[in-house]
Amino acid sequence: MATKEIPYKIYLEESEMPKDWYNVRADMKNKPAPLLNPGTLQPMTFDDLRPVFCDELVRQELDDTTAYIPIPEDIRNFYKMYRPSPLVRAYCLEEKLQTPAKIYYKFEGNNTSGSHKLNSAIAQAYYAKQQGLKGVTTETGAGQWGTALSMACAYFDLDCKVYMVKVSYEQKPFRREVMRTYGASVTPSPSETTNVGRKILEKHPGTSGSLGCAISEAVEAATSQEGYRYVLGSVLNQVLLHQSVIGLESKAAMDKYGIKPDIIIGCAGGGSNLGGLISPFMGEKLRGEQDYQFIAVEPASCPSFTRGKFAYDFCDTGMVCPLAKMYTLGSGFIPSANHAGGLRYHGMSTTLSQLYHDGLMEARSVEQTSVFAAAQQFARVEGILPAPESSHAIRVAIDEALKCKETGEEKTILFGLTGTGYFDMVAYEKFNNGEMSDYIPTDEDLQPGFDSLPVMP
Amino acid sequence: MATKEIPYKIYLEESEMPKDWYNVRADMKNKPAPLLNPGTLQPMTFDDLRPVFCDELVRQELDDTTAYIPIPEDIRNFYKMYRPSPLVRAYCLEEKLQTPAKIYYKFEGNNTSGSHKLNSAIAQAYYAKQQGLKGVTTETGAGQWGTALSMACAYFDLDCKVYMVKVSYEQKPFRREVMRTYGASVTPSPSETTNVGRKILEKHPGTSGSLGCAISEAVEAATSQEGYRYVLGSVLNQVLLHQSVIGLESKAAMDKYGIKPDIIIGCAGGGSNLGGLISPFMGEKLRGEQDYQFIAVEPASCPSFTRGKFAYDFCDTGMVCPLAKMYTLGSGFIPSANHAGGLRYHGMSTTLSQLYHDGLMEARSVEQTSVFAAAQQFARVEGILPAPESSHAIRVAIDEALKCKETGEEKTILFGLTGTGYFDMVAYEKFNNGEMSDYIPTDEDLQPGFDSLPVMP
Repeated sequence: MATKEIPYKIYLEESEMPKDWYNVRADMKNKPAPLLNPGTLQPMTFDDLRPVFCDELVRQELDDTTAYIPIPEDIRNFYKMYRPSPLVRAYCLEEKLQTPAKIYYKFEGNNTSGSHKLNSAIAQAYYAKQQGLKGVTTETGAGQWGTALSMACAYFDLDCKVYMVKVSYEQKPFRREVMRTYGASVTPSPSETTNVGRKILEKHPGTSGSLGCAISEAVEAATSQEGYRYVLGSVLNQVLLHQSVIGLESKAAMDKYGIKPDIIIGCAGGGSNLGGLISPFMGEKLRGEQDYQFIAVEPASCPSFTRGKFAYDFCDTGMVCPLAKMYTLGSGFIPSANHAGGLRYHGMSTTLSQLYHDGLMEARSVEQTSVFAAAQQFARVEGILPAPESSHAIRVAIDEALKCKETGEEKTILFGLTGTGYFDMVAYEKFNNGEMSDYIPTDEDLQPGFDSLPVMP
Repeated sequence: MATKEIPYKIYLEESEMPKDWYNVRADMKNKPAPLLNPGTLQPMTFDDLRPVFCDELVRQELDDTTAYIPIPEDIRNFYKMYRPSPLVRAYCLEEKLQTPAKIYYKFEGNNTSGSHKLNSAIAQAYYAKQQGLKGVTTETGAGQWGTALSMACAYFDLDCKVYMVKVSYEQKPFRREVMRTYGASVTPSPSETTNVGRKILEKHPGTSGSLGCAISEAVEAATSQEGYRYVLGSVLNQVLLHQSVIGLESKAAMDKYGIKPDIIIGCAGGGSNLGGLISPFMGEKLRGEQDYQFIAVEPASCPSFTRGKFAYDFCDTGMVCPLAKMYTLGSGFIPSANHAGGLRYHGMSTTLSQLYHDGLMEARSVEQTSVFAAAQQFARVEGILPAPESSHAIRVAIDEALKCKETGEEKTILFGLTGTGYFDMVAYEKFNNGEMSDYIPTDEDLQPGFDSLPVMP
């Protein structure tokens, strides 16, 4: 194909948007290990999962053979409100770096949730509505997922109950108000509204909460009320499936101009963005059609891939959820107060964990001061103020582009710019004032996490 | 032209983006009255203005005969980072309202400044750079203009000094940090860095500042330092010229699909967005080629068009700037604490003032609780959380669409969605809590403003 002149931003036509999600598990020889019932240690079945999750989402969770799953028309129409997202050629960054590399990023921040989370939120809300449910419950820490879900529920007129970690509820009142504007009820967790919340409050009256506790409250709220289910914004296979729209659009846009990425980079917390971005490219690699270098980027303070163990572990700190086989720092691991709240998770998607274990992708950990330096450099030339999470990918994209400058290689780099940093200005302020520090856990710090790994039979 | 199916979002190709700005003054029979020198009451000349503004911008300010002014390539390339902005068909809002009207909005919020202000900021920074200046100074209240200018200056490696009204500096630390992230120095005004600031602080030690004072400080900072000029984000003719890119893109996108708007609606503070949106359409009306209904929407608490006088007045509260003939509430008028900071200005663009005076456009004033109700309704169906300023236009667009529902008319409505409300969550919180109130000045409230109008010879 003749090389066309590449515009600054490649937008697909609406008619070119994906009509199916791509399920990368279908092309994996080594499937991700199944979730286990924590009581029986047997694989979770449809019937085990359906009291918690919507039926159709359970089906998607368990389906590791169907490669393409149609995107319902209502979801495709909602996608059209903020998608296709632009694939941006970072001409200005390339010039600033004086690199021969060609840098592209897929920008998912142009919607009110400020991140890619909306791609799965609208799907999960849709299936809840289809099932005739009254509403859904969830937890949120940094607030991106809660915001996305509140937007999706407003669209389908579903009730949305968000348990927000108390410290975030108090420190991020703006995120909370966005959710309320979309009609969600936002409860600081732990709360008096659930048994588990009341127990924790009794034991630790002054606690500022944790994600693990918020998950437990949200699950209890869903399972104890008629017509409610629990939804989750990352880690799960169903979420990676919905997020494949990122990679499918990226690939379609690149194919249109005859571009092949050499390196594909994404930040990794629970894996939703990274898994979505790389899925269709990984599919080609798994089928032996094309090779790509994939790099997962995680915070040095929460290094699941680079320093974790590949083992069965609890997905939540409260140890009530199913066991997943994944790279984990142990469900008891408490990450330090890194500013990329969306990446502070002890575990990782089972799908990505298997791919990493099989040597199909790489991982790097980076320190937050170097991440914010990359964020600032990027913002000043590309205009977009990136989220701290997304800036992990920027850091490694710049590092790779600078390597090309040294070697003279004209590699094509694609990274996922998952969101914007408008609600992260406290972190930017620390960086601007030179008050940000790094934290790398010692091997001893990791012990309490690893020690709590359940012993498998 | 055959009607094509209209997509949710119409994006122009980069090759279809405007190559010239359109200067609506060229087609006006009654030109806007010239700025007057406050000392001599004679029209301001090139030489009067060049100590304060960049040379090329002074030329643009004074040029009321050239219809098309080429957009320099560097500016067009910067535009490509965040433009073309989408022209959105509000299918979901139409369905929610059950109106036969067809609603379109031009969305200018998809850039880090969060508003259309960047369109002029990058132009002003470019001409400053071309002139070999070291930097520029400006004032900011709500912070949108200051953010846009700091982004533009980062791109051209210019120093950027922003005087931020002290109360905003303290209450909006996040806006301040965005500017600092882009390398701007942000000084709370009044400050010890200028003579005028020191004088005011001596007289009113505890003052929280005002826009008028910040303007005076920024002008002093520009004129007292070698290599600096002052820049302004609204009101001026040059700003309307740069903002014409909004209207030109809107018109090109509509023409592509054979769409003719019947009503064009924009919020009006100083007039930069409204003037930019309507310019090319107004040109057709002025040339007798096509008729349109134009509606300016302003806050009931600061009703320059609907309750002001068409007279010469000072542009600033400090009465140091030139006199402009405009609809004004008097430079001494203090608007109440309306949450649309960008619309709290006592005066109005001289160009728009003349067009309104000549009966070529209409104006309406709306109360802020009804504005936030419209904002919330819009956000829940269209996904975008709008800025309070932009929501004034949403209010009237919804009102007009509901009129169509009554009459059955299938009017086509176009409105300007100038920005996002991510930094306005304090206002949304008040609305969500039912604590927002309206304020309409009495005729007596307006007297102090009108009384301070200078007596013309």
